Amino acid sequence: MTALPSPDTDFPAWYVAVVRQAELAEHSAVRGSMVIRPYGYAIWELLQRELDDRIKATGHQNLYFPLLVPMSVLEKEGDLVEGFAPEVAVVTHAGGDELTEPLVIRPTSEATIWHTYRRWLQSYRDLPLLYNQWANVVRWEMRPRLFLRTTEFLWQEGHTAHATEAEALEENLRILHEVYADVVERVLAMPVLRGRKSASERFPGARETFTLEAMMRDRKALQAATSHYLGDDFARAYEVTYTGTDGAPHHPYATSWGASSRLVGGVIMTHGDGAGLRLPPAVAPHQVVVVPIQATDADVCEAAAALAASLRDAGIRVHVDDRDYLRPGAKFFEWELKGAPVRMELGSRDLAAGAVTVVRRDDATKDQAPLAGAAARAAELLCDVQAALFQRAQSFREENTAQIASRGELIAFLREGRGFAVSAWCGSEDCEAAVKEETSATIRCLPLESGEVGAPCTVCGAPGAEPATWAQAY
Amino acid sequence: MTALPSPDTDFPAWYVAVVRQAELAEHSAVRGSMVIRPYGYAIWELLQRELDDRIKATGHQNLYFPLLVPMSVLEKEGDLVEGFAPEVAVVTHAGGDELTEPLVIRPTSEATIWHTYRRWLQSYRDLPLLYNQWANVVRWEMRPRLFLRTTEFLWQEGHTAHATEAEALEENLRILHEVYADVVERVLAMPVLRGRKSASERFPGARETFTLEAMMRDRKALQAATSHYLGDDFARAYEVTYTGTDGAPHHPYATSWGASSRLVGGVIMTHGDGAGLRLPPAVAPHQVVVVPIQATDADVCEAAAALAASLRDAGIRVHVDDRDYLRPGAKFFEWELKGAPVRMELGSRDLAAGAVTVVRRDDATKDQAPLAGAAARAAELLCDVQAALFQRAQSFREENTAQIASRGELIAFLREGRGFAVSAWCGSEDCEAAVKEETSATIRCLPLESGEVGAPCTVCGAPGAEPATWAQAY
Repeated sequence: MTALPSPDTDFPAWYVAVVRQAELAEHSAVRGSMVIRPYGYAIWELLQRELDDRIKATGHQNLYFPLLVPMSVLEKEGDLVEGFAPEVAVVTHAGGDELTEPLVIRPTSEATIWHTYRRWLQSYRDLPLLYNQWANVVRWEMRPRLFLRTTEFLWQEGHTAHATEAEALEENLRILHEVYADVVERVLAMPVLRGRKSASERFPGARETFTLEAMMRDRKALQAATSHYLGDDFARAYEVTYTGTDGAPHHPYATSWGASSRLVGGVIMTHGDGAGLRLPPAVAPHQVVVVPIQATDADVCEAAAALAASLRDAGIRVHVDDRDYLRPGAKFFEWELKGAPVRMELGSRDLAAGAVTVVRRDDATKDQAPLAGAAARAAELLCDVQAALFQRAQSFREENTAQIASRGELIAFLREGRGFAVSAWCGSEDCEAAVKEETSATIRCLPLESGEVGAPCTVCGAPGAEPATWAQAY
Repeated sequence: MTALPSPDTDFPAWYVAVVRQAELAEHSAVRGSMVIRPYGYAIWELLQRELDDRIKATGHQNLYFPLLVPMSVLEKEGDLVEGFAPEVAVVTHAGGDELTEPLVIRPTSEATIWHTYRRWLQSYRDLPLLYNQWANVVRWEMRPRLFLRTTEFLWQEGHTAHATEAEALEENLRILHEVYADVVERVLAMPVLRGRKSASERFPGARETFTLEAMMRDRKALQAATSHYLGDDFARAYEVTYTGTDGAPHHPYATSWGASSRLVGGVIMTHGDGAGLRLPPAVAPHQVVVVPIQATDADVCEAAAALAASLRDAGIRVHVDDRDYLRPGAKFFEWELKGAPVRMELGSRDLAAGAVTVVRRDDATKDQAPLAGAAARAAELLCDVQAALFQRAQSFREENTAQIASRGELIAFLREGRGFAVSAWCGSEDCEAAVKEETSATIRCLPLESGEVGAPCTVCGAPGAEPATWAQAY
């Protein structure tokens, strides 16, 4: 284990080192694909459970569609195939033979799902279709980054069908608020902006893309989850109709929405510091790590085990690090790197005093607590840490968000990567492209409700602009 | 919805009809791949949770390895590549270009995992490695059958490394008994034989394959799960060594073990009857279905909702079928087909009597219970149904298992597909192949402990034989 690069001077190197040293993930033998190691996967599983619970609580059912999609099925929706064809991996041989039609590994499942909804949807009584799947997808990636951009990634994708446009849009916002924002803010402690994408940043084939945007510690934006309104274009492309209450055939309206393993990258980049990860307790595989200071002392080890049992009984995920070949200092270093929210050190001196030393990872404060009340103290601390991480990230975003009214200032702010710039935009793709050209920054989101008339466009001065949030992004 | 074929006269047609009509799964646009529909997927999720809990309780951690494997990595272990090469799907193009090296979609992950363990394993202190992953795999399938044999399927695969052969074998049996047999018997209510495979039926590259074999209602065997002892062959092929306590390099010993979505097929074929599915309560998406007899009567619907709430509070998975456009009879038919273990019918007459009509799916018995105690009654019934399904399946297997001592009888029994034949076998591949040639039946398993000397070999008369269980199999 070596010292981490500083996140302030070399954030990309710091990120790579944290992912590797905290044993979260690593590159595999296939370019762009990653191995998610047990500690990283445990974070993903906790996150997945939280998402899945909310997906079900909002009335959706899980199901599973195939990995492989015939090229001819993918090609039925023009925007979709145009958006994804350059990124797909293609199976041309199987079972020892060349295939008569090449198969694509799903980059997303709209095509195969709407191809199937044609069979499932008959009557208005079948609506809405509210389905979700947990799956791996493949999008060929030229500049892979662990968790953030990998050739294969894990995600959930929801695909729904509704009788009216209004119901579909209501679904889009329910998912954005009740599922995604709730998990990202309350579980991952990542404050997010909720908004709409500009046309150029929408999902291929979407009429509207709703997004959550979070600020990382290098002031760049991370798109945390998206919810797409697809209109009836997919229904038309895949010839899906149902018989309405009027006895006539109608096309249903579609949504799709996804959140992926890149959120693990978001947790690292939102909360991490010079010592490594700082995990929000809600997704920490070990919320409390107990370190017996004398790992070969039977009394101390027994007391550590009893302490852990009392925490476990209180519903806390706890790990006892009783490795007898490592010094306590090495263990402290490791669990700080791995971001365990609370460390409890138990030595013979603590034991004699009927106490335990308690250290918070987020602010490094250290105090003693009576052994008898340790579980209650831990539960309280975990709540505090969860809230403090969110608070700190929110303050950071506020400090690094500016209202900008002049073109020159906007360009300078974005070029220097100083954070989120909120600036009036007239809606023209030319203005958007001009800023992107000069700064490589993009519009991350527009207000959820369109039509909020603000100042004249910062770029061209045209009236009727709405406030756009610009930033460099992952 | 049409009447099902009879399982007694045409079991394969009955199976296909149940899977389709109960909305468990269907074929997709890609030959051999299936769509798992929400009701089928809900069964899989319940099963998955039970397996996952036990995998973790026995000390394993989940992680995730990539879908794609370079051909050169797969080819390092000779038996593995020989076994799987004819079945793999090959990606030759990606990101718009032809790949310099073709990639294989994992048919199983030994290759990619042992290729990685080389980096993870340094010292005896790193052992054992106890890892598992939930994943999709692809094996090109010429004769697909929904759930039982599909080109893509969902499974878990455990891959462990140990310091000694004895520890690895202990792991194999722990998984067989504490994870697989426990779930299959106690959760899926499928009685299983636990045994070893003969050499010809082993996993490619395995030195020993342990198996669970269940009898389906057509008297054929289904391999429910397997646990493979791989010796140090994979460690040698992938050059994995660790420094032992003696300071010298050693190869670790490997196991791998898997259970898949084919178990859903096993549940259907073990318990189903002429009316459709009979789900064990432990994996029934809806353990109790409440049918309000007058679905447009507000009092009845309110009482049905209250009844459902009381069941839910007792931890029972309950569904109220309040569709107002279907007659009760159609709902009864549908929930029998879908195998809901208990149905509660609530009509205005029941309500006036403060009672509810309770119907068991497994034996069709029907009685009344006071509304006040309905939750307790349901909980009791669900236990009874779970136990009765297991009992019935076990009796069925016993009735259809015969000890056979003559070659002629063995051949006749197996040709007629009369069930499990237990018959002495000397261990020679010639004797095994001769019976398979004449009957198409195979040795499903040998006793867990080898070396049990029985009668002379039923096929050749040689002494020193052990009792083999033969059957037709899926």
